[in-house]
Amino acid sequence: MRDVFVLGVGQTPVSEQTDSNIRDLGTAAVREALKDAGLIEVDALYVGSMFSALFSRQQLLAALIAQGAGLAGVEALTVEAACASGAGAVRMGCLAIQAGVHDVIVACGAEHMTLLDKESTKSALANATDWNMEGRNGENILSLNARLMTLYMEKYGVTSSAFCPFALNAHDNSVTNANAVFRHQIREADYYNSPVIAGPLRRLDAAPVCDGAAAIVLGSERVKSRHAPTVRIRASTVGTDVAALGSRQDPLRLEAAISSCERAYRQSGLSHTDIDLFEAHDAFTILTILSLEAAGFSEAGHGFEPGQTGAIRLDGQIPISTMGGLKARGHPVGASGVYQIVDAYHQLMDRAAENQVEGARIAMTQSFGGLAITAITHILERT
Amino acid sequence: MRDVFVLGVGQTPVSEQTDSNIRDLGTAAVREALKDAGLIEVDALYVGSMFSALFSRQQLLAALIAQGAGLAGVEALTVEAACASGAGAVRMGCLAIQAGVHDVIVACGAEHMTLLDKESTKSALANATDWNMEGRNGENILSLNARLMTLYMEKYGVTSSAFCPFALNAHDNSVTNANAVFRHQIREADYYNSPVIAGPLRRLDAAPVCDGAAAIVLGSERVKSRHAPTVRIRASTVGTDVAALGSRQDPLRLEAAISSCERAYRQSGLSHTDIDLFEAHDAFTILTILSLEAAGFSEAGHGFEPGQTGAIRLDGQIPISTMGGLKARGHPVGASGVYQIVDAYHQLMDRAAENQVEGARIAMTQSFGGLAITAITHILERT
Repeated sequence: MRDVFVLGVGQTPVSEQTDSNIRDLGTAAVREALKDAGLIEVDALYVGSMFSALFSRQQLLAALIAQGAGLAGVEALTVEAACASGAGAVRMGCLAIQAGVHDVIVACGAEHMTLLDKESTKSALANATDWNMEGRNGENILSLNARLMTLYMEKYGVTSSAFCPFALNAHDNSVTNANAVFRHQIREADYYNSPVIAGPLRRLDAAPVCDGAAAIVLGSERVKSRHAPTVRIRASTVGTDVAALGSRQDPLRLEAAISSCERAYRQSGLSHTDIDLFEAHDAFTILTILSLEAAGFSEAGHGFEPGQTGAIRLDGQIPISTMGGLKARGHPVGASGVYQIVDAYHQLMDRAAENQVEGARIAMTQSFGGLAITAITHILERT
Repeated sequence: MRDVFVLGVGQTPVSEQTDSNIRDLGTAAVREALKDAGLIEVDALYVGSMFSALFSRQQLLAALIAQGAGLAGVEALTVEAACASGAGAVRMGCLAIQAGVHDVIVACGAEHMTLLDKESTKSALANATDWNMEGRNGENILSLNARLMTLYMEKYGVTSSAFCPFALNAHDNSVTNANAVFRHQIREADYYNSPVIAGPLRRLDAAPVCDGAAAIVLGSERVKSRHAPTVRIRASTVGTDVAALGSRQDPLRLEAAISSCERAYRQSGLSHTDIDLFEAHDAFTILTILSLEAAGFSEAGHGFEPGQTGAIRLDGQIPISTMGGLKARGHPVGASGVYQIVDAYHQLMDRAAENQVEGARIAMTQSFGGLAITAITHILERT
C-alpha cells in the first residue's frame, strides 16, 4: 500500500452570509490548495457535500468544481456522509493514491447552508438521522443531542458545567483564526445565559450553520519529493453504528467513533498517547466529550474532565479545536471534515501562528455523519 | 495494483411502483449479492444514490443499508454522480480493493424515484444539469437531449428512423428479463406513434422513471480463489466534461465518455474490438448513438448505423442493452450503473439464459451523470 502525503491546503473564510454559490466556494478552496502545493497536474477531484442537491439544486458538484478550478476532464466524484462528507472525500482520495491509480488528487468539502431560513435548515439536517424512526417523528439533530446530554448528566451526575469549557476553548482559539466565523471570546456567563434551544442543550453547545469550502492536495511518494518537510496520512478509517439512538445498546458509547479509532490506531501503529492534538467533531459539546472517551483520551464518564483541567487548551495535554473547531471556526457541514485536516496541517507544518501547538508532530481528526452514525478518522504526521 | 473480481450479484426487480422504501430496496439487493457470493465477511459498503436525500429524506444511506443487511459497523459511504452514482460506488469499491485496504466490499446502487409526481421528478432531474446555466433557466434533461437529437439530425441528415431501432432492441431484450420493468416488445409503429415530449424527442426515446436497487460483491485475489470461474474488473475509469451543453466546443462529442473509454482501454490493454457486449447508458436513444461513437464502435456521424444493421442485437457484432438496458429493464437512476454490471456479470458467467450473448468473455459498461457530464466505464472479463 502506497503512502499518502498532504502537499497543500486551501480554504475560504467560514461565513454566515456569503455572496458566493457552492461551486464558487469549492473552486476557490481548490485553487488555493493547488497554489499552496505548487502543483498543476491533478488526476482526480473528490468532493464532499451534504446539501448541494437540497439547497443549491446542483448534483455532480465535483465535476462542476473541477471545471471551475481548471481541471475539466479529470475524474471527479462526490461523496456523501452527511456532516462527514468532506472527510469521506479525503478517505476516497487516500484510497486512490494507496491503490496506485492516481498520484495527485484534490479532496474538497463544500457547503452553502445559509440559503434557507433556520427552521428549514434544521429540518433538512434531520436527513442525517434515521429518518423513518427519528426524523419523520419530529426528532432532529438538536433534540437527539439534547437527549444524549441528558443521559450523560443523569448517568454521571454532572451539570452544565461539564459542557461549558468546550465552548469557551473553541472561541478562545478562533479569535486568532482569520478564517473563523466567530472571532470573539465567550465567558462562562455567556454560556449560562445563552438560550436553551432543546433542554438541556444551549445555543452555545452547538456549532453554527455556515458556508465555506476547504480543500487539500494529496500526493504519492513519487510527487512528494519536491515537498519536504510535509505531512503524511498515517491512517484513514471509517466506522459506522446503528443509526437510531433508541436502537443502540449504550447510546453513550459512540461505536462508530470507537471502531474508527481502533482501526486508525491499528493502521498507524500508534495509540492515543501519541496524538499531539485532536480535531474532534465538536458540533455539540456532548459529542466532544463522548469523542474523547471513544478515542481513549478519557475513560467512560470522564470525557468532560479535560475541559475542566485545561488539558484541551493549546498548551494542554490534548489540545482540541485548535483553530476554533466546528463550534467557532464554523461548521459548513460537508466541508468541516476537510477544514479539520487543513487546521491539522497548519499545526503540523508550524504554520498555525498564534494558535500553534508547540512541537506538534502527530494530529488526529475525526468527523461524524449524523449522531456518529458514521465516523471518519485521520491521523497525520509531520515527516 | 491488486486485481478486483466480481464474486456475486443481486438486484430487486425494477418497478414503477413499489411498497419498499429506498433502504429496504438497497438492503434486499445487498443481501442477495452476499448470498450469491456465499460470503459473510464484508469490509465495506459503498452506495450510489441520486435522490435519497431529496425524495426519501435519508442521507447516510450507506450506513443504513449496512445496518439493514446485517453489516452494521463496517465502513460505509455514499457516492453521488447523479445518474452515474451506482457506477461511482463500484469505482470506489475497486479503489479500496486495489489499494489493499479491503478484501471484500459491496457496491450498491439504490433509488426510489416514484414518490413524487412526474413534473416534480422532471424538475429534480434538472439538478443533473449545470443548474446556474441550464436548470435555473428552465432547461431539463429532456430538453437538453432533444437539443442533442436536433443537432445530430441536422449535422448528419438523419431522421427519427436513426433512433427507433435502439428502443426496439431494448424492449426485445427485456421481454425475457424477469427483473425488467417493461416486459413487452414494441414495434416501429409504436415508436412513431409515441408522443413527442420535447421535439423531436419521443416518449419511447427515453428511459422510464423507476425504483430499484442492485448490488455486487467485489473481492481481491485472496478471497477470489473460492470462486472459479469468475469475472475480473479489467478497468474502472471516470471522465468528466464541461457541464453546460452550450459551453462545449462540439456537443456531439461526449468528451467524458471519450476520455473514460480511452482510460479504460489503456488500463486494460484492450480496444473496442475486444468488447463482446456493451451495456451503454441508453437513457435516451441519442446518448446511445453518441456512446457508440465515443467508445470507438462507430465513426462520428455513424453511431446510428449499428441500430439499422442489427449489430446491436444479441447475435450482432456489438450487442447493447442485452437485458433491456436503461430503456426497458428500467432506469432507477442512481442504481442503473450497478444494474449494468449485474447484467454484464450474468452474460459473462453464462447465466443470461434466453438473453445470452454466445461466447461473451469481455463486457463494457458505461454510466453517465447528467448529459455525460460524468462518464464511468468498467470493462469486465470472464477469467
